[in-house]
Amino acid sequence: MPIDFTINPVSPDLAADLQAKIDQKTKPLGALGQLESLALKIGLIQNTLTPHLNQPTLLIFAGDHGIVESGVSAYPQTVTAQMVANFLSGGAAISVFARQHNLELLIVDAGVNADFPHPNPLPEGEGAFSGHPKLIDAKIAKGTKNFLAEPAMTSSQCETAIQKGAELVMQQHQVGCNCIGFGEMGIGNTSSAALLVHCLADMPLAQCVGRGTGLDDGQLQHKYDVLQQALDFHNELIPPMARRPTEVPVVQAHHERNQHATVRPEPGEGLKQGFQGIAKPIDVLATFGGFEIAMMVGAYLKAAESGILILVDGFIASAALLVAYKLYPAVLEYCVFSHVSSEQGHQALLATLNAKPLLSLDLRLGEGSGIALAFPLIQSAVLFLNEMATFVDAGIDEKTCN
Amino acid sequence: MPIDFTINPVSPDLAADLQAKIDQKTKPLGALGQLESLALKIGLIQNTLTPHLNQPTLLIFAGDHGIVESGVSAYPQTVTAQMVANFLSGGAAISVFARQHNLELLIVDAGVNADFPHPNPLPEGEGAFSGHPKLIDAKIAKGTKNFLAEPAMTSSQCETAIQKGAELVMQQHQVGCNCIGFGEMGIGNTSSAALLVHCLADMPLAQCVGRGTGLDDGQLQHKYDVLQQALDFHNELIPPMARRPTEVPVVQAHHERNQHATVRPEPGEGLKQGFQGIAKPIDVLATFGGFEIAMMVGAYLKAAESGILILVDGFIASAALLVAYKLYPAVLEYCVFSHVSSEQGHQALLATLNAKPLLSLDLRLGEGSGIALAFPLIQSAVLFLNEMATFVDAGIDEKTCN
Repeated sequence: MPIDFTINPVSPDLAADLQAKIDQKTKPLGALGQLESLALKIGLIQNTLTPHLNQPTLLIFAGDHGIVESGVSAYPQTVTAQMVANFLSGGAAISVFARQHNLELLIVDAGVNADFPHPNPLPEGEGAFSGHPKLIDAKIAKGTKNFLAEPAMTSSQCETAIQKGAELVMQQHQVGCNCIGFGEMGIGNTSSAALLVHCLADMPLAQCVGRGTGLDDGQLQHKYDVLQQALDFHNELIPPMARRPTEVPVVQAHHERNQHATVRPEPGEGLKQGFQGIAKPIDVLATFGGFEIAMMVGAYLKAAESGILILVDGFIASAALLVAYKLYPAVLEYCVFSHVSSEQGHQALLATLNAKPLLSLDLRLGEGSGIALAFPLIQSAVLFLNEMATFVDAGIDEKTCN
Repeated sequence: MPIDFTINPVSPDLAADLQAKIDQKTKPLGALGQLESLALKIGLIQNTLTPHLNQPTLLIFAGDHGIVESGVSAYPQTVTAQMVANFLSGGAAISVFARQHNLELLIVDAGVNADFPHPNPLPEGEGAFSGHPKLIDAKIAKGTKNFLAEPAMTSSQCETAIQKGAELVMQQHQVGCNCIGFGEMGIGNTSSAALLVHCLADMPLAQCVGRGTGLDDGQLQHKYDVLQQALDFHNELIPPMARRPTEVPVVQAHHERNQHATVRPEPGEGLKQGFQGIAKPIDVLATFGGFEIAMMVGAYLKAAESGILILVDGFIASAALLVAYKLYPAVLEYCVFSHVSSEQGHQALLATLNAKPLLSLDLRLGEGSGIALAFPLIQSAVLFLNEMATFVDAGIDEKTCN
């Protein structure tokens, strides 16, 4: 089952016309700042001067992680399944925010360590949407293996997860969705994300390991030690640049970060040093990833292949995107970054991806919550482009000088 | 006509209960970042554990400025009236964004140099809402005087404008509005705002003078020279600290700002050095201000007196708030800052006001546009507080450690 996508670069053909349309609106040149570059980007992705957001949808991928048995999270593994139920009953943060903005919210069981009861018996072959109407059963297995002792998943599981994520996006595309975001839920998944970023963006481990759902200094040190131990065990995967001992201990790196003193890579610097090739990112993903992360990788790639505008959430979502980017760099051209989270490593990862996020609100929740909160800004960009009057329309005098 | 408001500090009585309510929601402690402090603030202002935003309203104050004849703006004065018409016909950026978020949008003619035709003859005494249903006639005069040669307005005009702004807010309060924002439109009003900030926050003039609607380097230098000349003319108003020659020429200060190298005052530093007292800020306002700015001062003060949540827009709106703050410091307790604009001086002014804005999108439009764009975040803060499930409600396991 090969990983094979065809992602075309976004055509720049309409760039000049879009910019002219933006510049004719009744406002000083550039006065809407980042909304203007956003409007331009969306117009280019949709290849139109009148973009629209059709059936905007959030897919939340949920999965469990074997590494949790090694004490890397502040919460027990049971919380993953409990939060899925909370999403479905409407009580989670993302439930509230998706409702606020009329986002279609679908929860994907990518590999939760629980059986979700189906409220009604279902006819055979009803497929992915059986059971709760918003819960999609795409379970690969009941959680990954503990990557301290073996790969988190097999290559076959990893490829199946990628294909499954792609299929789910294709289904949304087929019913008319042209704007999609991906969230995640998985106790322990900041550990997976930290290792993916460390291996694929060549960032020192201490810069990638964060407090997740709220570790204290001692627990953070333990998480770091466990992840370093996992790296040592799977040593052959790690690029030489990343293998040198990190110079700053993890807890010190966190405290420096809080003083805004952490040394961050220049945009693109990490990528220049990273290794290339199709096989390697998939191997890193299978070794340290999660089913929800692997599914997101496929989802990003299929969305870009389909020309869908992609909304990117926080640290884990960005780590999954990094894997997709290492496979198909053009995926980035379809992405809008919703926010920079306060999880350690996200800011540096965004710099690596040359991303300029819309929000910076010290969020660290996941679930796609940053996407939902940024969504009205994306709507605003489309609305001003379509609805604002021009200087000529409104009979307004132009600049007297310049 | 004395300027007399009674602004009570916000009661901290419910702080512990609000924080407990926030902490019981199904998310890691603090994971909603700035939305959590926002929810707490709104709960305290409304003195309730279940805050609501009722009839959220945007008042845009429009006025013309005599200083425009000295060539401080890239656009001619006629644009102020033309933009008022654009607001009313729904084609301006703020029209689009207010419509998007169901914000009541009212335009106040505080002192535009034009007569707005009334579409229908009106019965005598219909009052402030005559003419277009969204245009409020509160005109003090057809623009201010040129403050290069005389005060922009008389003391009496200044006080009338403040009272008028207060009345307009009282009317909104009486019909149930508990959440209000103030925008502005006035060709030339960044010049007024720059002088208010220079005089009242003790910031060097070069740090306060910006490109407004888009001046080039030569025009910016001219604007700076004009404003320095005005300061020299009205010398007795200027605190001694600010009177020393600024060390960095204005154009150089701008270029340094673009390299993020400008020295900014520490939070509160400017205020410690500034002069105190009721009379002085009003004098500065009358000398250099605009009718729309003076009306905003009264609007801020009445909103705080009425316990209304105040949404603050960009540089000019913040300069008006600075005047209000110098008169009644407690006004700040009712304020939420929507964004930091890219107009020179706004970031430093926000630091002076100890403000943490919600958005940073390089906007520089005014009109209340930053408020409208940030409004869904304010709604989100209220919604998560009211609608999210608690750990107990949702049957979710708590932390295993900490």
